[in-house]
Amino acid sequence: MRNILIIGAGRSASSLIKYLLRKSTQENLNVTIGDLSIELARRKTYNHPNANPIALDINDVDQRQTEIQKADIVISMLPAHMHIEVAKDCVTFKKNMVTASYISDEMQSLDEAVKANNLVFMNEVGLDPGVDHMSAMKVIHEIEAKGGKMILFESFCGGLVAPESDDNLWNYKFTWAPRNVVLAGQGGAAKFIQEGKYKYIPYHKLFRRTEFFHVEGFGKFEGYANRDSLKYRSIYGLDDILTLYRGTIRRVGFSKAWNMFVQLGMTDDSYAMENSETMSYRDFINSFLPFHASDSVELKTRMALGIEQDDIMWDKLMELDIFNAKKIVGLRNATPAQILERILNDSWTLQPEDKDMIVMYHKFGYEINGERKQIDSKMVCIGDDQIYTAMAKTVGLPVAIATLQILNGNIKTPGVQLPIRKEVYQPILKELAAHGVVFNETEMPYVGYNPDKLVGN
Amino acid sequence: MRNILIIGAGRSASSLIKYLLRKSTQENLNVTIGDLSIELARRKTYNHPNANPIALDINDVDQRQTEIQKADIVISMLPAHMHIEVAKDCVTFKKNMVTASYISDEMQSLDEAVKANNLVFMNEVGLDPGVDHMSAMKVIHEIEAKGGKMILFESFCGGLVAPESDDNLWNYKFTWAPRNVVLAGQGGAAKFIQEGKYKYIPYHKLFRRTEFFHVEGFGKFEGYANRDSLKYRSIYGLDDILTLYRGTIRRVGFSKAWNMFVQLGMTDDSYAMENSETMSYRDFINSFLPFHASDSVELKTRMALGIEQDDIMWDKLMELDIFNAKKIVGLRNATPAQILERILNDSWTLQPEDKDMIVMYHKFGYEINGERKQIDSKMVCIGDDQIYTAMAKTVGLPVAIATLQILNGNIKTPGVQLPIRKEVYQPILKELAAHGVVFNETEMPYVGYNPDKLVGN
Repeated sequence: MRNILIIGAGRSASSLIKYLLRKSTQENLNVTIGDLSIELARRKTYNHPNANPIALDINDVDQRQTEIQKADIVISMLPAHMHIEVAKDCVTFKKNMVTASYISDEMQSLDEAVKANNLVFMNEVGLDPGVDHMSAMKVIHEIEAKGGKMILFESFCGGLVAPESDDNLWNYKFTWAPRNVVLAGQGGAAKFIQEGKYKYIPYHKLFRRTEFFHVEGFGKFEGYANRDSLKYRSIYGLDDILTLYRGTIRRVGFSKAWNMFVQLGMTDDSYAMENSETMSYRDFINSFLPFHASDSVELKTRMALGIEQDDIMWDKLMELDIFNAKKIVGLRNATPAQILERILNDSWTLQPEDKDMIVMYHKFGYEINGERKQIDSKMVCIGDDQIYTAMAKTVGLPVAIATLQILNGNIKTPGVQLPIRKEVYQPILKELAAHGVVFNETEMPYVGYNPDKLVGN
Repeated sequence: MRNILIIGAGRSASSLIKYLLRKSTQENLNVTIGDLSIELARRKTYNHPNANPIALDINDVDQRQTEIQKADIVISMLPAHMHIEVAKDCVTFKKNMVTASYISDEMQSLDEAVKANNLVFMNEVGLDPGVDHMSAMKVIHEIEAKGGKMILFESFCGGLVAPESDDNLWNYKFTWAPRNVVLAGQGGAAKFIQEGKYKYIPYHKLFRRTEFFHVEGFGKFEGYANRDSLKYRSIYGLDDILTLYRGTIRRVGFSKAWNMFVQLGMTDDSYAMENSETMSYRDFINSFLPFHASDSVELKTRMALGIEQDDIMWDKLMELDIFNAKKIVGLRNATPAQILERILNDSWTLQPEDKDMIVMYHKFGYEINGERKQIDSKMVCIGDDQIYTAMAKTVGLPVAIATLQILNGNIKTPGVQLPIRKEVYQPILKELAAHGVVFNETEMPYVGYNPDKLVGN
């Protein structure tokens, strides 16, 4: 038997655990699932004979090291900032390691030691980062292999609600950390490169510079720019590319409506509001509007946003019950962003029968034999239920598959790495497809970055 | 002879030095002026027999302590963060001290020791902070003395160009640190209280929520909100006030035009732009506009800002020559704010014959005998020339007057303090008036915070 240690049994571990347990008989796997809550760990094993749920506190150094020593490979599904102690132990005890998180500077600094011990530390092998790297590098390598030169790469990903559960005016529910949704795009201008020119979008304009696209069978979507589209330029080998843009997917109309919160200042997380605990939802929105002796908060809101009462934007606000004077925020020293999250949770929380949906879209532009061509690559994944969500599947399955590939010696190049080499992405994408995570790639005439598709300015 | 040590002979020290030297014979003063540049210190003394210009490096502990020991009182005109070592020495050697800077936490922490040694450490006794405190507290105390209850206090201050030198479309030139002008209002929402309700304006809306007012003989001005209007609420004894608002003064139309830079993202100081050293002014503005294969940067700018070519806003941009493709930024790793400052410096630098102007406006609303009343208090000061600017006068004279009042034992309450007590503001305001810094106070019917005066939303 080979021992796999999974640390963390939270939401993103469900499909990961299920996959490894299903493979466990055929592959001779003993899967230990450690979590602060043994109950949570146990619940995801369904009493499988090869599963070993344990209570594990990673701050208990002795226990952590004991469990890591027993394992052949360690999967850390902990929050990103907690990987490093596990990673150091994995170096000490010469264990391979897998995470779905961005490579931190601390993790990167282990590279030399990891290589010296001939270990594989595979990171960024979840959904985003993860499936995005793999599905993109496959096409980029294919284009390069046939002599093409990349001139454009755009990549979008979004966690949404499945069409059958899409029943509000925003076409959105929280399928992952709500706080990240509220804070999305903050902390500096969005930076990308377009036709060879660096472009910057300030946060307060971010949701007005979106791009549209269609996914066959699923309709129209929009994307707004991520903070740093250039992060993977060198890693993907695209140093000379003319257009590089990464974005987040929403249903059309979401960004325009979200922009109302941005314009009013409701997404600010930099200061605590006075009397936040006792203020009503109505007090909250009124805090961002000028005082008027007689005009209603509703009228002032429409004035401030430049919308009329028969505007769909107005209906979207009303749907959130944001003018209710009886609903109390009830959060001490809360920032606007925290209060907004509270208000949105009333309307956007997934219901037990709701399903989520992941959408990914890549656009590759290239030149070959003096001609410009384009490949579109699209993936949609729908969740099974509230445990085996699309998010859990698309994050957990690639982690699980990578783990087994490393364990079986198919992925063997040592070092702290992300899944951009063929040795890595080829087997993972193949098996993901067998589990329904399929990319549809289409060759088409070059459209490129079409400014006519831009909304607003 | 009494010895005064002035540390720092920069722009704001000109009028300060002049005042003290003029008083030096009658008051038996020996004025030592220490600066890193003895040349700068010497230039401002005009060989006055009671002046002693010296080269002084405050990081040279021995020299600093020697000079402080020789003094009866120390004025620090250093940048705010550099006062603390001087202040500690003043405690050690039992010397009074005067600054025009905000009281830092470090400075405040010396309060107990300052009191124990029966010393006066007078801070915030320049213009803003300084003259604003004194002119406001005078009227507030008068209202309270006759039994009135304060219900509203608004206070505005601005450094502008004098009417006779006001020759550009922005009605503005840099009369003080340009960087502070470019960054004004950043770092969080503007917070104030209006009719008992807390209000917050996000940065990207700050320049669209202005208030207008007139100053007799000088025409119309506008004010936009400062970051924290509530900072002095308790210090002024206004804990129960319904409306408290502090703002910055500009000529009408400045804020609307400045908002163009804010909307485009050009005032951002949080990231360095790619290739900033070699980019042209035209490249700079284009970085904030969407790519288009054929539309000009000019057309894209007007589209993005929603203005037409016969709009005065457009003329204001053109006046700055911001579309020039031949003018090169020439700054390495510069932020948008640094580049914008560079561009504005071409147009907004004071010319040798230009004069500056300080405008201050307070509005006091109060209730007395069941009636609401209002007092408006206004001050305008015009500079003499480029040395004895309005800024140098209004910052330096109150520092100088406070120094002499402390030296003569008229201001004697010990502690780390700001000029809010009658003992302090009464003699200073009186002497300021003799030097032309006069507040015109007018009793009038209560207007209050008039929402009809708000521009935009």
